[in-house]
Amino acid sequence: MRATVLIRPKQGILDPQGEAVQGSLRKLGFAVGQVRVGRLVDVEVEVEANGSDDARAQIKRMCDELLANPLIESYEIRLEGS
Amino acid sequence: MRATVLIRPKQGILDPQGEAVQGSLRKLGFAVGQVRVGRLVDVEVEVEANGSDDARAQIKRMCDELLANPLIESYEIRLEGS
Repeated sequence: MRATVLIRPKQGILDPQGEAVQGSLRKLGFAVGQVRVGRLVDVEVEVEANGSDDARAQIKRMCDELLANPLIESYEIRLEGS
Repeated sequence: MRATVLIRPKQGILDPQGEAVQGSLRKLGFAVGQVRVGRLVDVEVEVEANGSDDARAQIKRMCDELLANPLIESYEIRLEGS
């Protein structure tokens, strides 16, 4: 089962990369408001029962243990086909 | 109008970051297949007519001009509420 994890800086956390992108977009003439930059991770999970609950639980553990920093980042899990 | 741009390394393009994450996840005991790491950009676009076609066209131009490297990256635009 394939999944995409979207990892974003939490609201209130400084995002210098987002500010830099915002500045560059404005210099290029785009009228943009807030810009935030995060990461995405596409993962292929081997789930025995092909159960999406199991996959979601596994990916949640991956996020907590490795993929995201829960102090400053929030994450969102999207399972393919759900 | 808010939008999220998902930027991924194209298939066939080496993704050392994804390989590193894959290795780390396996060391932690997770049975994962391919892992790819990309970026995401949340943008607030000021669209006069609030037209989603206009917003999508604007964001496509941002991607081509600044956000993505079309040689090695593909991007996907998701407008909020669509």
